[in-house]
Amino acid sequence: MTIAVKLAEETITMGRYRSDGLIDFAAAVLAGAGLEAPKTRTVAEILVEGDLIGHDTHGLQLLPAYVRQLREGTMTASGEHEVVSDRAAVAVWDGRYLPGAWLTVQALEAASGRATRYGVGAVAIRRSHHIACLAAYLPRITSRNQVGMIACADPAVATVAPFGGLDAVFTPDPIAFGFPTDGDPVVIDMSASITTNGMAGRLAARGERFREKWLQDSDGTATNDPKVLSQEPPGTILPTGGKDHGHKGYGLALIVESLSLGLAGFGRVDGPRQWGASVYVQVFDPELFSGAGAFGRQTGHLAALCRQSRVPDGAQPVRLPGEQALKTKRLRLREGIELDEDRVKSLGDLAVEYGLAPPTAI
Amino acid sequence: MTIAVKLAEETITMGRYRSDGLIDFAAAVLAGAGLEAPKTRTVAEILVEGDLIGHDTHGLQLLPAYVRQLREGTMTASGEHEVVSDRAAVAVWDGRYLPGAWLTVQALEAASGRATRYGVGAVAIRRSHHIACLAAYLPRITSRNQVGMIACADPAVATVAPFGGLDAVFTPDPIAFGFPTDGDPVVIDMSASITTNGMAGRLAARGERFREKWLQDSDGTATNDPKVLSQEPPGTILPTGGKDHGHKGYGLALIVESLSLGLAGFGRVDGPRQWGASVYVQVFDPELFSGAGAFGRQTGHLAALCRQSRVPDGAQPVRLPGEQALKTKRLRLREGIELDEDRVKSLGDLAVEYGLAPPTAI
Repeated sequence: MTIAVKLAEETITMGRYRSDGLIDFAAAVLAGAGLEAPKTRTVAEILVEGDLIGHDTHGLQLLPAYVRQLREGTMTASGEHEVVSDRAAVAVWDGRYLPGAWLTVQALEAASGRATRYGVGAVAIRRSHHIACLAAYLPRITSRNQVGMIACADPAVATVAPFGGLDAVFTPDPIAFGFPTDGDPVVIDMSASITTNGMAGRLAARGERFREKWLQDSDGTATNDPKVLSQEPPGTILPTGGKDHGHKGYGLALIVESLSLGLAGFGRVDGPRQWGASVYVQVFDPELFSGAGAFGRQTGHLAALCRQSRVPDGAQPVRLPGEQALKTKRLRLREGIELDEDRVKSLGDLAVEYGLAPPTAI
Repeated sequence: MTIAVKLAEETITMGRYRSDGLIDFAAAVLAGAGLEAPKTRTVAEILVEGDLIGHDTHGLQLLPAYVRQLREGTMTASGEHEVVSDRAAVAVWDGRYLPGAWLTVQALEAASGRATRYGVGAVAIRRSHHIACLAAYLPRITSRNQVGMIACADPAVATVAPFGGLDAVFTPDPIAFGFPTDGDPVVIDMSASITTNGMAGRLAARGERFREKWLQDSDGTATNDPKVLSQEPPGTILPTGGKDHGHKGYGLALIVESLSLGLAGFGRVDGPRQWGASVYVQVFDPELFSGAGAFGRQTGHLAALCRQSRVPDGAQPVRLPGEQALKTKRLRLREGIELDEDRVKSLGDLAVEYGLAPPTAI
């Protein structure tokens, strides 16, 4: 099936697109919306990386929203972060609501360099804009035989209740952790809550429900209906472990928010209203611990043990976190990224708006 | 009810005991079993701290087993760790199977000092003996306005399956994280699996079951029966999130084991058979990030938001992790630690064995 979207001169059709072409296009759109180079390219790369690895809620789907924020001035289009503190292995930056992808890539570079020197390095960023897909960043670290961690929270948003409570305190509070092995890297990217705002919004828009009761209404009754988040009074997303053992997800949320809001020194107590994030990134360099070889020997063995674990009859083999993402990325690098009707339309609209040639299907 | 346990000269009875007296007694027992000072006192303090904060599976209950290991030479009684590497903010130690409590206290001290200088500091320990209750260590760090983290795994043990698998790969893989606020500290201490070997063993011994299906038999059928762990072929403990969203606990287990086994450079691939642990400790100094005051302002506000979250009718208020432990500790410091029949008997046996006066009830 081919759906053509009418443009001024050209059309963008449903089909498969090379990631390079999508990056070029997204960078041009961001430039059209006022973002200065080379931030344009870095943001475009991180968004398209999200699509490459199959996290399509956190890929190019975000581009129209980023463009709106640039035009409204709520995403800062130029200049650099301000250094709040810079002490040996760690630093704190004020991101001035620059694009989170740009800030996070810079912070990982800085933390990586510090890790090479000190063993570990960390950067906390206050007032970053949204940072998209956390897993998209970590191959930049694992490919250097380093271990990377990213934790972030948006202090302007609360949809997740503490265990036992009814009122939202936390965002889903993602934490990503990537490490090299003797083969492919392992990249974990999970939220402290069972599910996310993005998934809830997507299902609610389609009138669908979650397969299990991952939320509660405002009285504390567990439900699979994502619409409770927009009711008044609102329901909340349950922490990982749910009604049964949600003290674990609650603990993880407190870890993520103390690292991100606490170390960055900017959070809920400051009452921010705009879309943003406080971010904590840390890089560990195994070479300064027991050596990169010793690290890969241990983690490679762990990965092999997981893969060798028997599964119930007819079940899929055990996968390592990041394995499916890497498989998807390799396939999509080879065969292109398939865009659905919604994304074709939104990219077509952006092409018209900025007078750009739309990306060409393979 | 008073149960007297017959000793050579004196008796120890069920009742309440001052923590100081229990520490003195445990240190004397450890000295009797050959452990050199001042390791005796540090180990005794950490064990009794476990009882003070209510983690009684990881308190003095461990003393008889530690004594056995000292006598058999599988817990090293004297000397220091060997430094494998020492590079700026990080170090790796070979613990030579010295008591884990001693090594972990030393490692936290070293990491704390490095954090004061570099912002973060970390020590990975290979070939530690058992480290008991992780939460017991962290007040030593939070009281300095620092943030502490401990992760550990016993590479000789596997009882937890990867998500979707049937064969055990991991230990319960505890991770503890403590941070100061503007009031009491928050101390999170959780395993990557839903429950622990200790809880399963305790319930199995009593012929009891878990309240929910936190394990699976060797075919992958979820069960609340802890006895499946000792069946042949054995069942396994489920990762946090269980059959529904256990990829989260699986991810957390991989984080804990890559930090502990990977950075320490000693793990499952080395095939250790004796009781022990690889340990990763990290300390963060908020003063070198945004300042201790800014950190406490953010985390104090988070704690207040959690406490203020409404609860269902008739439910307990929302608690912060570590809050109940601190309440228990304050009560037990004031009114003593109550010892049950089993512990009275085991402490009485140790008093006889080492010719010591047993601790005196209040």
